[in-house]
Amino acid sequence: MQDPEAEAPADADAPVELSEKLTEAVAAALEQGDLERAASLAMPLHAADQADLLEQLGREDRAVLVAQLEPELDPELLTYLDETVRGEVLEQLGPAQAGAAIAQLETDDAIDILEDLDPTEQMALLETLPTPERAAVEAGLAYPEDSAGRLMQRDFVAVPEFWTVGQTIDYLRANPSLPDDFYDLYIINPRYEPVGSVPLSKVLRSRRGVLLTELRMKALHLVPVEEDQEKVGFTFRQYGLVSAPVVDAHGRMLGVITVDDVVDVIEEEAEEDIFRLGGVREGDVFTPPMRTSLHRAPWLLVNLGTATLAALVIAQFEGTIQRIVMLAALMPVVVSLGGNAGIQALTVTVRALAMKQITRANMLRVLGKELLVAGMNGAVLLLAGGSLVLAWLGQFDLGVVFGAGIIMTIIVASVVGVAVPILLDRVGLDPAVASSVFVTTIADVFGFFAFLGMAAWYLT
Amino acid sequence: MQDPEAEAPADADAPVELSEKLTEAVAAALEQGDLERAASLAMPLHAADQADLLEQLGREDRAVLVAQLEPELDPELLTYLDETVRGEVLEQLGPAQAGAAIAQLETDDAIDILEDLDPTEQMALLETLPTPERAAVEAGLAYPEDSAGRLMQRDFVAVPEFWTVGQTIDYLRANPSLPDDFYDLYIINPRYEPVGSVPLSKVLRSRRGVLLTELRMKALHLVPVEEDQEKVGFTFRQYGLVSAPVVDAHGRMLGVITVDDVVDVIEEEAEEDIFRLGGVREGDVFTPPMRTSLHRAPWLLVNLGTATLAALVIAQFEGTIQRIVMLAALMPVVVSLGGNAGIQALTVTVRALAMKQITRANMLRVLGKELLVAGMNGAVLLLAGGSLVLAWLGQFDLGVVFGAGIIMTIIVASVVGVAVPILLDRVGLDPAVASSVFVTTIADVFGFFAFLGMAAWYLT
Repeated sequence: MQDPEAEAPADADAPVELSEKLTEAVAAALEQGDLERAASLAMPLHAADQADLLEQLGREDRAVLVAQLEPELDPELLTYLDETVRGEVLEQLGPAQAGAAIAQLETDDAIDILEDLDPTEQMALLETLPTPERAAVEAGLAYPEDSAGRLMQRDFVAVPEFWTVGQTIDYLRANPSLPDDFYDLYIINPRYEPVGSVPLSKVLRSRRGVLLTELRMKALHLVPVEEDQEKVGFTFRQYGLVSAPVVDAHGRMLGVITVDDVVDVIEEEAEEDIFRLGGVREGDVFTPPMRTSLHRAPWLLVNLGTATLAALVIAQFEGTIQRIVMLAALMPVVVSLGGNAGIQALTVTVRALAMKQITRANMLRVLGKELLVAGMNGAVLLLAGGSLVLAWLGQFDLGVVFGAGIIMTIIVASVVGVAVPILLDRVGLDPAVASSVFVTTIADVFGFFAFLGMAAWYLT
Repeated sequence: MQDPEAEAPADADAPVELSEKLTEAVAAALEQGDLERAASLAMPLHAADQADLLEQLGREDRAVLVAQLEPELDPELLTYLDETVRGEVLEQLGPAQAGAAIAQLETDDAIDILEDLDPTEQMALLETLPTPERAAVEAGLAYPEDSAGRLMQRDFVAVPEFWTVGQTIDYLRANPSLPDDFYDLYIINPRYEPVGSVPLSKVLRSRRGVLLTELRMKALHLVPVEEDQEKVGFTFRQYGLVSAPVVDAHGRMLGVITVDDVVDVIEEEAEEDIFRLGGVREGDVFTPPMRTSLHRAPWLLVNLGTATLAALVIAQFEGTIQRIVMLAALMPVVVSLGGNAGIQALTVTVRALAMKQITRANMLRVLGKELLVAGMNGAVLLLAGGSLVLAWLGQFDLGVVFGAGIIMTIIVASVVGVAVPILLDRVGLDPAVASSVFVTTIADVFGFFAFLGMAAWYLT
């Protein structure tokens, strides 16, 4: 998806990039009511930078600037906006104008925008689209969310196996309706199955009489149209692909996915892992506070439940704590260390699963390694923590119990940190979901129990 | 970087992809000592899959399989291996054979392998390379780590501004030493400065007499050779680029970076954030236990220090806890909720900073929003937590103190979760580094102090 605005005659200057200074200048101009200056600063920017600029302005300033830019609004702008801000802008434009902008986009971009809307808004916009665009978008929306069908571009160049370089070049020259930019030619058989691809550079460098099949073609990695985008991203990264054909259940070619679409997918998937590990459902800094609160509160309520479990364990040892109050001060240290060691093991495991580095063949080896690391680090912290207590409180026995509590909790939490994501992955769930709550709960419950239990048995 | 092995004649079957079954079949064959079967299963795989297969085997099995594959080892395999495993394989091959393999790689891949080695190993391998390859690799290694200079490909196609399509095609056909695959032609002026680029699809579709400058060229996003790869990744993603020219301080063209190189960078950068947030220095599941332990122990020792700070706070309230032992059971709940809310705010902020969504212009707005969210979720948990204590222990006053402790800690931890990464970013540090330790320490220290302090003042 090359932005048409990014094309310019040969003597065009380097494009203006967005800077903090520029954002502040626009904000200042808007504050002073100098709308023309604000627009003249924003106008030369690439649509992606205009989107960032709008996102960084307050809600009112944003509406004012959009109104100012509206007559010459680059439709691509919509594709770069964050979901929340895009909703605002679409509402401001109204269905007719929003639809006119969306009709100018490539199909995959239009789908990207429409799939985020609620059904009534989606329908209202679809109705404003010209019939061919509408049909293409609806066909895309019929594929499952996050599938290859929604990522693919339907415009591609496919030629029969028996053509020569010359025939191909003549065909390309004679058909202005073919896509603007493409990097590979696909060769299809009479059943419309892709059988190979030839990079354009090879076509350009061959004589007209050469058969396409004589050029050394790249082996194809076919992408089934229903395949999840995460798998698509993995395939591109794994094999260093630039583009891949998308096929239906019968192996017939439906479209093409190019690496620039996949860049966004890879970002999204990594972001999903980051957010899930952080207990956040979405990371949209521009989501209104109320919705953000609704997204995050359930996680905190789950956390209240698991922390209460840990509190119940502590409550069992009321008598012990009453006798040795310092246990109350030391016990959070035990569970904190255990939790952190567990999160370390968890982070590495979740990432390795995403990279498909852990399979049945090596999962016991990975678990064994983490156990060894937990043992070694546990021993280091046993010594450090034990000495600390000895130095601080002068109590050798308490130091021993503290150190023993630490190493036991670190080992248990680390095993859980490796085992839980692997188990979730085995049963087909996302290993990042809920893993961290498991790990910290186990570290808390086990850590309090082990430390206070040993103290009750050994010290009192 | 297309893998030469991925090229096949037109009638080649779809490539074999690695599956768990296949990995297990290879492992089983190795166990039975059927080396030929193991090799015959591994051989048809893409080099990237061979790398994954080797990674998933145990150390000894790996060495045996490498020895078996060695006569026909695809040099690309080395580029796909994880750093630790690659070190083992290079050692097994020995400098002469390893050097011969590296000499066959593209320069940027060779640099990628050599930059990870220690200086003596690096020197030993460099000495085995033929002079031109060695010079190219050394020139690449002279650029800073993680800079555009190390990512770029030095082979590119640049043509003068006054050429026609016909001249260009003749030049391409006459020069077999030009790179195999490329997607854009660069147009340079007499000072060797890139002034524009033309996608190959445009060249293919134009008549021979057309001047290149008449084709609508893409505006260029020039990448300075010293630019950090993170910035390069951002530029590609932001503007949807497929390739970009790399220039020296005088604006002269030195090389080209293509989007497939950037895919790896984007992955790496996202991975770095995941690891730093998880308190892990590197996520290599294949790193030996001893080194992993050394990487992770410092973080746990820092954690021991910060948790001890929190313990010191608790110790100040020994008397209060002795009187109301249930405080000891409830206080971990307060800090756990605060910590989790803080980590949520932190996760979103770190990610938004990486996406350059937070700048001076909107940082106060972001902080204000998180404050609002913290207030709302704090109120929800105040009610839920307070009721829980009332139901469990039947103590209204304790419920009030507990709820108040929760909301205060959530608010403080959330502000810290937003402010710390923004401050780190402002002073030029990575916002993901050490942010989570700050947030949990503040949640612990403040939470214990607020909860126990209120209890001491209000309940006793």
